[in-house]
Amino acid sequence: MKDRIYVNELPQHVGQKVTVAGWLHNLRDHKNFGFAMLRDKTGIEQVVLNAEQLEQLRALQLESVLKFTGTVVERKAKDPSVKAVEIQAETMEVLSPVTTVAPVEISKTDLDLNLDTLIDNRVVTLRHPKQRAIFRIQAALVHGYRSYMSKQGFTEIFFPILAGAASEGGSEFFKVDYYGREATLSQSAQLYKQITMGVYEGVYGLSYSFRAEKFGTSRHLTEFNQFEFEVGFVDGMDEVMDHAEAAIREMLTTVEKTCELELKLLSVTLPPVGKRFPRVTLKEALEAYKVEGGVDETHEPDLSPAAERWLSTTWGPKHHDCGFVFVTDYPATKRPFYVKLDPADPSNTLSFDLVGFGSEIISGGLRVNKYEEQIERLKAKGLNPDQFEDYLMMHKFGIPPEGGFGMGLQRLTQNVLGLANIKEATIFPRDVQRLRP
Amino acid sequence: MKDRIYVNELPQHVGQKVTVAGWLHNLRDHKNFGFAMLRDKTGIEQVVLNAEQLEQLRALQLESVLKFTGTVVERKAKDPSVKAVEIQAETMEVLSPVTTVAPVEISKTDLDLNLDTLIDNRVVTLRHPKQRAIFRIQAALVHGYRSYMSKQGFTEIFFPILAGAASEGGSEFFKVDYYGREATLSQSAQLYKQITMGVYEGVYGLSYSFRAEKFGTSRHLTEFNQFEFEVGFVDGMDEVMDHAEAAIREMLTTVEKTCELELKLLSVTLPPVGKRFPRVTLKEALEAYKVEGGVDETHEPDLSPAAERWLSTTWGPKHHDCGFVFVTDYPATKRPFYVKLDPADPSNTLSFDLVGFGSEIISGGLRVNKYEEQIERLKAKGLNPDQFEDYLMMHKFGIPPEGGFGMGLQRLTQNVLGLANIKEATIFPRDVQRLRP
Repeated sequence: MKDRIYVNELPQHVGQKVTVAGWLHNLRDHKNFGFAMLRDKTGIEQVVLNAEQLEQLRALQLESVLKFTGTVVERKAKDPSVKAVEIQAETMEVLSPVTTVAPVEISKTDLDLNLDTLIDNRVVTLRHPKQRAIFRIQAALVHGYRSYMSKQGFTEIFFPILAGAASEGGSEFFKVDYYGREATLSQSAQLYKQITMGVYEGVYGLSYSFRAEKFGTSRHLTEFNQFEFEVGFVDGMDEVMDHAEAAIREMLTTVEKTCELELKLLSVTLPPVGKRFPRVTLKEALEAYKVEGGVDETHEPDLSPAAERWLSTTWGPKHHDCGFVFVTDYPATKRPFYVKLDPADPSNTLSFDLVGFGSEIISGGLRVNKYEEQIERLKAKGLNPDQFEDYLMMHKFGIPPEGGFGMGLQRLTQNVLGLANIKEATIFPRDVQRLRP
Repeated sequence: MKDRIYVNELPQHVGQKVTVAGWLHNLRDHKNFGFAMLRDKTGIEQVVLNAEQLEQLRALQLESVLKFTGTVVERKAKDPSVKAVEIQAETMEVLSPVTTVAPVEISKTDLDLNLDTLIDNRVVTLRHPKQRAIFRIQAALVHGYRSYMSKQGFTEIFFPILAGAASEGGSEFFKVDYYGREATLSQSAQLYKQITMGVYEGVYGLSYSFRAEKFGTSRHLTEFNQFEFEVGFVDGMDEVMDHAEAAIREMLTTVEKTCELELKLLSVTLPPVGKRFPRVTLKEALEAYKVEGGVDETHEPDLSPAAERWLSTTWGPKHHDCGFVFVTDYPATKRPFYVKLDPADPSNTLSFDLVGFGSEIISGGLRVNKYEEQIERLKAKGLNPDQFEDYLMMHKFGIPPEGGFGMGLQRLTQNVLGLANIKEATIFPRDVQRLRP
């Protein structure tokens, strides 16, 4: 739109005539004059209306789309250190009239809705500045991730979704009627990232995964995205963790640099990142939790949610000024068939989780890269190698020592922002009940 | 891998001891000595083997993964202007042995396989330098697109795939068994990009679309990706075309800058881009095709594939030194319900296609942004507004004048590279018959 400026640019235009446009966020009616609170993607500002303009807006509802020309003038601010402005409207044009009262009041500072109302009315609730901020930050996390991977010379892959058979055993698949045959929706990009690693040596991408289990928790969706990464020709697992750490660092830096206002709006402080993320074995982590945290879970084969929280919010910051902790050496029983066993102890795997923001955010490790070994691992997991023909073809024709990781996009966003439910971190969430909007 | 260098870095290391690793692309056996052609992600180079190393490799097959240390020495090249090198191997380590003969000979300069053999053996055929190049270029196109959009301050959206009902009428949907209910796979991100445009003002993303029609042509897939774009507060359609043109320019520049070798390998020359992509109406385009091209299709409501080819490869370059031509003003009968009608002639729409590389590559236009008008348009297309509740909620609660476009990723890649079949431009293609690998 020619000559249009954004609301956040107004303080630089005091005394000038400008054009602004946006949504009628609120209307303050003082009989012979009034104020329109105009919202655009950069913020909300006050427009002083004359009697005629006010009359016209009285006949409309909030969220009407308006365009004003007028002069920017200074006004008194509550906080005297801030330069406050308003627009003295000269002309007003209604770009899209709204004649129905919106189902939710998005002019409130906090929406304070139950989750179903929030999502049912996504078309409108997403316009609330705090809702909008969530998905700006989500996009920044993705940009930081891709930026790191691209600079390493790795290749971005666009993973397929429709598949014939299970690429991994385990949880339930969604079934698709595919020209009379049965197809499934991808549960994991593991097959594709390993195949393409065998070509590009380092690959990454954002995959879609689908899980048909009957989850009803605050941490599960039926459709979600996952940061994928796989790298070949590694000497050991530290190389994989180095990439995970560097990616997280660039993601956080990108959010800090490009989403300052959004972080402030959501009252989010990012955790300390120290000099290097500490790396401890599962045994060491559980021992510390027992000795320092006072909870004995040393008999457990995994970290409990409480232990994850303690490690990343108490132990890491205290000992390493760092809210991120790599935990390594998970037992073979807790890891999938493609994870490499520890040659020194085959009940152990060369695998890791990264805990941060109080929760597990990354799961990764080295992979089995030899054919015979992979067949054995499948059998040991009770799986039939004949059903993994495409997967095993890769091992048969040579892949280097390699590793990788996965990180859920919505889960990460939930944890970074401290949201109670993962659906709040999902722009159009799908769950057992929900397929819309 | 510590100290490893890539094959394309070897000429800078003449006289030095280096470590290289990769796949055994070919083996030349001269009885007491031999050459291993070693392939990594940057190229292929010759390694001189001693008798013992040769003996060891004789027992293995091509595609075995190897690591060498050795000294880089100059060798005679066919082209004396090129500095040719080879490695005198000292140590050799087999990282992954291959004991089965590969199903295709990827050491050939051209694979020359039928399409099914190519895709059935994707795990191996993707390793061929010309196959690998295709998806490096595809990723570069995506990077250029995102880079442009991000610099404009637009927000990237991650569109959902599972949906309850049709977001547009028309072609067939894939049906998913969703906890006993019926769900569908998204055919279009139109709903979501318009909703989010109504929040972020400008949005973009790479969507997945699924089409269950029984296509069997060289231009159709059942699953594909689409560049999505939508922008609000536009004065007219030229603003949308400006963004399309600038995005294409940055995509081509990115490919030129980052994929020089890949373009050379595939013998691809990018078309001229002129100073500004010409913009003509459909009538004008058909008239030129009649007068200059000698083919009268002036009675047609659309461009034929032959007309698209002529416009972008003959007319555009001749008159505007440009391989890209915007064609505007398509009849309402040929455009979907969300496209804005021309106020001056309601049988016409404010829509455009961009033809380039001999084919239509972008389809876009202005959108209906008023509630009553959208209801009328749905009815005129024989659709029931009651089935578009979420879509119409957006119009009901105010969206600005806006427009956008879509561009198929695999279709574009096919056209840029002049590939005979779209499946060659799809890393893991899905069609009526195929769901693997």
